[in-house]
Amino acid sequence: MEARNIFQNISPIDHRYSISEKALFDSLGAWISEEASVSSEVKAEIALVIAHLTVRDGLTPALKAALEAAGAKIDPAEVYAEEEKTRHNIRALVNVLKAKVPPETAPLVHLGATSVDILDTALSYRMRGVTEGVVLPQLKKLELLLCDFVEREAETPQVGRTHGQHAVPITVGFALAEYVSRLGKSILEIQRLAGQLKGKLAGAVGAYNATAMIVRDPEELERIYLAELGLEPSEHSTQLVEPEYLLRLLLEFNVAFGIIANLADDLRNLQRTEIGELKEGFSADQVGSSTMPQKRNPWNSEHVKSLWKAFMPRVTSFFMDQISEHQRDLSNSASQRFVADYTAGFCMAVSRMASVIEGLGADRERLLYNLRGAAGSESGKGPGIPGGGIPGGIMAEPAYILLAETGVSDAHEVIRKITLAAEKEHSSFAAALAKEGDVLPRIGAKMSELGLVGTAAEALTFFEKPERYCGLAVKKARSLAAKYRKLINN
Amino acid sequence: MEARNIFQNISPIDHRYSISEKALFDSLGAWISEEASVSSEVKAEIALVIAHLTVRDGLTPALKAALEAAGAKIDPAEVYAEEEKTRHNIRALVNVLKAKVPPETAPLVHLGATSVDILDTALSYRMRGVTEGVVLPQLKKLELLLCDFVEREAETPQVGRTHGQHAVPITVGFALAEYVSRLGKSILEIQRLAGQLKGKLAGAVGAYNATAMIVRDPEELERIYLAELGLEPSEHSTQLVEPEYLLRLLLEFNVAFGIIANLADDLRNLQRTEIGELKEGFSADQVGSSTMPQKRNPWNSEHVKSLWKAFMPRVTSFFMDQISEHQRDLSNSASQRFVADYTAGFCMAVSRMASVIEGLGADRERLLYNLRGAAGSESGKGPGIPGGGIPGGIMAEPAYILLAETGVSDAHEVIRKITLAAEKEHSSFAAALAKEGDVLPRIGAKMSELGLVGTAAEALTFFEKPERYCGLAVKKARSLAAKYRKLINN
Amino acid sequence: MEARNIFQNISPIDHRYSISEKALFDSLGAWISEEASVSSEVKAEIALVIAHLTVRDGLTPALKAALEAAGAKIDPAEVYAEEEKTRHNIRALVNVLKAKVPPETAPLVHLGATSVDILDTALSYRMRGVTEGVVLPQLKKLELLLCDFVEREAETPQVGRTHGQHAVPITVGFALAEYVSRLGKSILEIQRLAGQLKGKLAGAVGAYNATAMIVRDPEELERIYLAELGLEPSEHSTQLVEPEYLLRLLLEFNVAFGIIANLADDLRNLQRTEIGELKEGFSADQVGSSTMPQKRNPWNSEHVKSLWKAFMPRVTSFFMDQISEHQRDLSNSASQRFVADYTAGFCMAVSRMASVIEGLGADRERLLYNLRGAAGSESGKGPGIPGGGIPGGIMAEPAYILLAETGVSDAHEVIRKITLAAEKEHSSFAAALAKEGDVLPRIGAKMSELGLVGTAAEALTFFEKPERYCGLAVKKARSLAAKYRKLINN
Amino acid sequence: MEARNIFQNISPIDHRYSISEKALFDSLGAWISEEASVSSEVKAEIALVIAHLTVRDGLTPALKAALEAAGAKIDPAEVYAEEEKTRHNIRALVNVLKAKVPPETAPLVHLGATSVDILDTALSYRMRGVTEGVVLPQLKKLELLLCDFVEREAETPQVGRTHGQHAVPITVGFALAEYVSRLGKSILEIQRLAGQLKGKLAGAVGAYNATAMIVRDPEELERIYLAELGLEPSEHSTQLVEPEYLLRLLLEFNVAFGIIANLADDLRNLQRTEIGELKEGFSADQVGSSTMPQKRNPWNSEHVKSLWKAFMPRVTSFFMDQISEHQRDLSNSASQRFVADYTAGFCMAVSRMASVIEGLGADRERLLYNLRGAAGSESGKGPGIPGGGIPGGIMAEPAYILLAETGVSDAHEVIRKITLAAEKEHSSFAAALAKEGDVLPRIGAKMSELGLVGTAAEALTFFEKPERYCGLAVKKARSLAAKYRKLINN
Repeated sequence: MEARNIFQNISPIDHRYSISEKALFDSLGAWISEEASVSSEVKAEIALVIAHLTVRDGLTPALKAALEAAGAKIDPAEVYAEEEKTRHNIRALVNVLKAKVPPETAPLVHLGATSVDILDTALSYRMRGVTEGVVLPQLKKLELLLCDFVEREAETPQVGRTHGQHAVPITVGFALAEYVSRLGKSILEIQRLAGQLKGKLAGAVGAYNATAMIVRDPEELERIYLAELGLEPSEHSTQLVEPEYLLRLLLEFNVAFGIIANLADDLRNLQRTEIGELKEGFSADQVGSSTMPQKRNPWNSEHVKSLWKAFMPRVTSFFMDQISEHQRDLSNSASQRFVADYTAGFCMAVSRMASVIEGLGADRERLLYNLRGAAGSESGKGPGIPGGGIPGGIMAEPAYILLAETGVSDAHEVIRKITLAAEKEHSSFAAALAKEGDVLPRIGAKMSELGLVGTAAEALTFFEKPERYCGLAVKKARSLAAKYRKLINN
Repeated sequence: MEARNIFQNISPIDHRYSISEKALFDSLGAWISEEASVSSEVKAEIALVIAHLTVRDGLTPALKAALEAAGAKIDPAEVYAEEEKTRHNIRALVNVLKAKVPPETAPLVHLGATSVDILDTALSYRMRGVTEGVVLPQLKKLELLLCDFVEREAETPQVGRTHGQHAVPITVGFALAEYVSRLGKSILEIQRLAGQLKGKLAGAVGAYNATAMIVRDPEELERIYLAELGLEPSEHSTQLVEPEYLLRLLLEFNVAFGIIANLADDLRNLQRTEIGELKEGFSADQVGSSTMPQKRNPWNSEHVKSLWKAFMPRVTSFFMDQISEHQRDLSNSASQRFVADYTAGFCMAVSRMASVIEGLGADRERLLYNLRGAAGSESGKGPGIPGGGIPGGIMAEPAYILLAETGVSDAHEVIRKITLAAEKEHSSFAAALAKEGDVLPRIGAKMSELGLVGTAAEALTFFEKPERYCGLAVKKARSLAAKYRKLINN
Repeated sequence: MEARNIFQNISPIDHRYSISEKALFDSLGAWISEEASVSSEVKAEIALVIAHLTVRDGLTPALKAALEAAGAKIDPAEVYAEEEKTRHNIRALVNVLKAKVPPETAPLVHLGATSVDILDTALSYRMRGVTEGVVLPQLKKLELLLCDFVEREAETPQVGRTHGQHAVPITVGFALAEYVSRLGKSILEIQRLAGQLKGKLAGAVGAYNATAMIVRDPEELERIYLAELGLEPSEHSTQLVEPEYLLRLLLEFNVAFGIIANLADDLRNLQRTEIGELKEGFSADQVGSSTMPQKRNPWNSEHVKSLWKAFMPRVTSFFMDQISEHQRDLSNSASQRFVADYTAGFCMAVSRMASVIEGLGADRERLLYNLRGAAGSESGKGPGIPGGGIPGGIMAEPAYILLAETGVSDAHEVIRKITLAAEKEHSSFAAALAKEGDVLPRIGAKMSELGLVGTAAEALTFFEKPERYCGLAVKKARSLAAKYRKLINN
Repeated sequence: MEARNIFQNISPIDHRYSISEKALFDSLGAWISEEASVSSEVKAEIALVIAHLTVRDGLTPALKAALEAAGAKIDPAEVYAEEEKTRHNIRALVNVLKAKVPPETAPLVHLGATSVDILDTALSYRMRGVTEGVVLPQLKKLELLLCDFVEREAETPQVGRTHGQHAVPITVGFALAEYVSRLGKSILEIQRLAGQLKGKLAGAVGAYNATAMIVRDPEELERIYLAELGLEPSEHSTQLVEPEYLLRLLLEFNVAFGIIANLADDLRNLQRTEIGELKEGFSADQVGSSTMPQKRNPWNSEHVKSLWKAFMPRVTSFFMDQISEHQRDLSNSASQRFVADYTAGFCMAVSRMASVIEGLGADRERLLYNLRGAAGSESGKGPGIPGGGIPGGIMAEPAYILLAETGVSDAHEVIRKITLAAEKEHSSFAAALAKEGDVLPRIGAKMSELGLVGTAAEALTFFEKPERYCGLAVKKARSLAAKYRKLINN
């Protein structure tokens, strides 16, 4: 065993993040470290011997156990030492393995296979394994935490924002339900795509040249070999498995990554000093800034966004790896190894986001302050913030809608002018509305007709309590959380 | 109508390629030009009026006809002129439309909708339209041409190549069947994803605030509105439809683009002077080079590869457009418009590749020369190319496999040494094999046992006729072409 | 002339943005439309004839004039019509030109040149032209507007923000001086790189094979040819000019684009409802939202950010175009044409940002409110925003620094605990500081010693007026604006 | 010390490539491992204490030595342990350091600095160090090996290729001189840009708020601090150094990477079985394929290309890291750490390419065979390759040029028709030329006039010896190698 001080590693994954996310790093390592790569290749080579024995009716339980025991004994360092001679990694592995298996099976080792029959199959095996064993559990944990939060805050009023401007009211649960819905679908898609990864035993150029020499049905041999690893064959192979099976899985990882990055951005912004609606958990001893002791930084959300910036663009490499000349060039060999880094980086973002959501708090008082401040509910005045917009301006939309419903064709323009008047006179929107001739009475009559208020006279109070204008926000939040909780738990 | 000399346009799509691919440009324009954008937004606005009338039981065939007639009368220039005043494109459209619809329906125009209820819905409508109306027909045409070619050349022997080196034999049809298989699956996926594009009528922040004021069941109103356009609602909306419906379609376009680019690279390389196995069609008057009159350049394949280089990286923009702060920021507005460019660039590559495949010729004589040259079948000698490798070296693989089958554990090493001997003595592999003690007899006995040759003595002829060593190439080529021809035609 | 309705174009550059940025589109078109491409190629062909005549001592003013007149008569449509026959754009141009030049010079047209001697030279000519004639003037206009704004607001206090959290005070001018400094350097670099674009007349593979046959010094012929167009030769050529001259210019465009996108993000955020410190200009008739009449959206800044998302990733294409096999493959041909789109998109962002800065207003009242709110200057209380942080918390840093200066080694920890106490007791930081034993007296004594206050007793007032704690903000703002105003104007 | 089995790492850099490129990995680790990061931050903190002592006239040699000794004692593991408490890496480092420095200097540790004053400065220090200490030496080694090769093969004839087709002759040295020229300029640019990396001591928001409290001239303090590390201040700082100093260096790395990738592609293709002009060194024991013993794969060139595919797209992350909101958000923190990976990946490609060039062989016999085969020099016939183009077709260009020189305006068309005739009659170009009326005599007379042949009658021999038609190839190869050898050695 060759060991190295962790801090002598170069990639942050192998030093800093392997420490800060130790448990995750270890569970990833079980699938996508170099040790796991070698071990998956050994598994594939053994599966091939088993397949050969099967079609020759020579497989016994004892032989099978002996083969698996032989495989278990292989140390990556041994293979690397042999590779220094052969300069070819699979030939090195084969040499090492041949020396360990029961002698009568040695000629069957790697028989009929080209290196990539092992390598691409083992890669699919690892990627399916890491997806089902690490990526999906992490994602599902996050999804369920989001469901919890959405249900907890389904009714908590919040101002909806477009262009960074107050728009119309929603609830906090509704806002986060966006991510339940988007991430939920992505999880289901990742699950589907992981199940479609393929292997191959079609030889040097995909035409089964070698195996067609030595077995009656080379496609049957391929099926048995792959079934040992829980895989199915690529529909067509060159020396490589068709690249799109893995590509689509990686693209969907990146889709999920983008969703989480969007969530991170929302959380970062909702933690701005001036907004302060949500808060990441913060431990008692934690230092926000080395020089500004008062700081509470949304650094976990920032970290997630930053990981996205580091990893998202790597899909371009994945797309470039679709191209391999003729029956293959080797120009995907090094680049494909970095799929492990990508997967690790993605998982670390998912895990960090889960911990953010787990500790996430909603400041209901501040949320209402922001919403009402916007609505100017008290005494027709806003909170007196200079240049802070028209108090209650977010209620311009229902005013316009209801006025249009009374048959006024230019309702939008009528209301827009009332907002300008409110702005000019530093009054609230409700107050300006009340002053504008017959507009409020018309609206009130319509509201009463629609059953939105008891009497037309109550209309003004509606425009002063914006939290009443939140449409289906609560219902949508609840139904999405329930739906995805069920889908994820099944 | 404002017209401009085509050559005054800046984007190659709108000048050079709009001429060289005129019919395609026009069919794309029907869906994704600015004229088509405005017209799709008008369609959406009219659908909304129809939905309002429907839930109010006020829709008559005459009204519907009048609305559609009003919509048909709108000229984009009129809308742009109005936008100069409003500085808001949908408000401009609404103003223009209100003046044209039957007066009693004017208050219903845009009622309860936010701009994006129209814009995102119209975008999905256009993208589904262009995919089903242009992209898929182009792709299917290419796929069927590939099937034709694969069937025609299913049995034509070719040397398989890995790392640019001769490996073992395949057939031309098998080589191209790779693309039938990969592209075929991508076509089916594009079809599936185009059918999943969604629209919305959930208002400014996605919570149905406005429509919940004025109708009993705002989700029913949304369904009716979208059904008019053949769409369904986004599962959750902010101001925007969830971005992933469109994103996944665009990613699959890019997957197909990569497949076609790979094909282009293969074709470019197979047309190298030294290889010359395939040829793009070339018209009699065409000039290969302004200065080298003898040149025949694979410029169509180069063109396809070049379009891929121009457009593939744009997926990064699509991934960035997943992120929109809170209930939306506008930072996807300009970037999303360029989805039209991307779609056009992709289609142009597909169309060009179809014309390449349509005119593609296989030079069977040269193919056999390359394969046999590699095999050195005549008189044990290669074609005398200096440094041209070991004649017949591509038959080392079956020799190794068969030898291993006889129980020789280090068969690979035995055969590798024979290749070194052949190289040193400038003899063919077959000749060197024949000289090496009992190797050939062992192999011959095994071949005879396996039914590959009549008698062991015939073994040498096998190693001199490499085209016999092509595994399941013919079978796979035929079955893939048949499978996808059927899937595409249905 | 073939004309097309603008709205039938597909690229937003050629429809929507060609209208909204008409003057800019026209000035770009003069350099990078297809018309400009053809005309630059004609210029290059004529320059070549002139160079041939020069080395043969056959150039007369009359001949030169006649050649230029011949070039001026060429219509792109004519060349395209000829290309339909030749299927080769430069051969088409040559055929058209030969028919127009004085007959005795016809054999000299294109003599010794390969197409790319014309195409790459003409591309460098256009790119230098558009950079010096459009890109740099646009950038310089923006830079000078930034200088104006920085000088105007050099002393306007603003709270500095890190992680979206209030940090310590700066001034508005200082904040924008960041962009003066970053963009200024990028402008100088763009200027330098545009001057380094190269041309070539080195023939089909760059070795001057053809011209070495017919002139004594082919490198001299190349120099004369290029000097006619104001260019110098590529140090080495294949069929192509070395790609890095243009690549570096495009990369620096993208660097400038990123700087402007960062500015756009800052402006977007400073216009949030809750912040409201800066405001884009807004015309009286403009509609903010089709449904929310009160909205004022920072849509120009959003537009700039969105253009960056659309164009920034295209550098990947530029990097891919570095690779051309052997003496060239054609796979950069289509992709390179889209450099025109990129340049247009970049310029449109620059121009839009200039108009934003031109109309940008700083709300000084709101700026001070935000800063003091954070400082809680009045009566030791903040503005009563629930969860709004510790009033005056931004003054924790100077407290820690000054305390450390008195020799307290764990000053950071002492002050951090005071902020926690303030938070718990809902008091301001200044109030909490005053209560904490001998901390304030120690700090006051140090301040007095350092000349920051008259007497130690005045120390508290310092902690209540955060705008006094802004370091060198004013000085840096002024000196950077002055420096770059001078550099740009020269 | 926490150690880990190398094979348990996830990133290929830290397992596979740390073994295959051990010496390089170690020299990189000295600058860009996590250990090196911590140590560079310690160096920066000590430099700050020294700067404080300097402006206070308190620096003695003994103190300086004691400080440096204290820094040398810090183990990254200690800092990480402390960070588990503080959750802030620089605060952790400061705590550890304070306990080790002479007690009287403890209050000066980190005084006036914000974390990023240390972090960004240390990053610039490391990146300048790794560039000057590792990247540039590697690049220069490669450049000098290229110069050697170019000089050795300056006169070796080769057919020039465009579009993968034989074009006109060059020499092998000329072909590689392309890379001497392109890479040489990039090396000089990297050198220039590494010297321009900057540091900062401008505090939390860049305005020197803290240091302006405690020293007379905070910019002087910054200059002294940075000079200790060999750096200069960023022209403007927010919390961050302006991002473009580092960005431009990384972009130039990527420019050099693209040049090397292009070289790798050329080498890959020139090693194709059918071309075989160049050969990577190949050790005696090396296995080309696990199943095809005859294979010699250009796997080192493929490896370089593959690394480029893995790393080139990461520039998109670098461009995204230009954007940091206001005085900084933290969203560049994780992403910037991966600059280390990128640098390592780039260096590994450079190093591998150097070893390829070191062992690169040119097969002069094959080169001439390819060139002459193309020229069909013997007995007017090509080597009889079916469909192998027109023997001698590459001499069509000089025929056309010389004919045009005799005053024939449509010379290109005349010669193109001769190539079509040659093709039809399976004769060589020279033979077809000789048959075509007065064309050859005209050309011969012109050649004689130009001094290219003794008498017109010798003209035919010229068209049969293509290596005589290589322009300035030899001269350019020699002069570029000499120029860059000198520049690099200085």
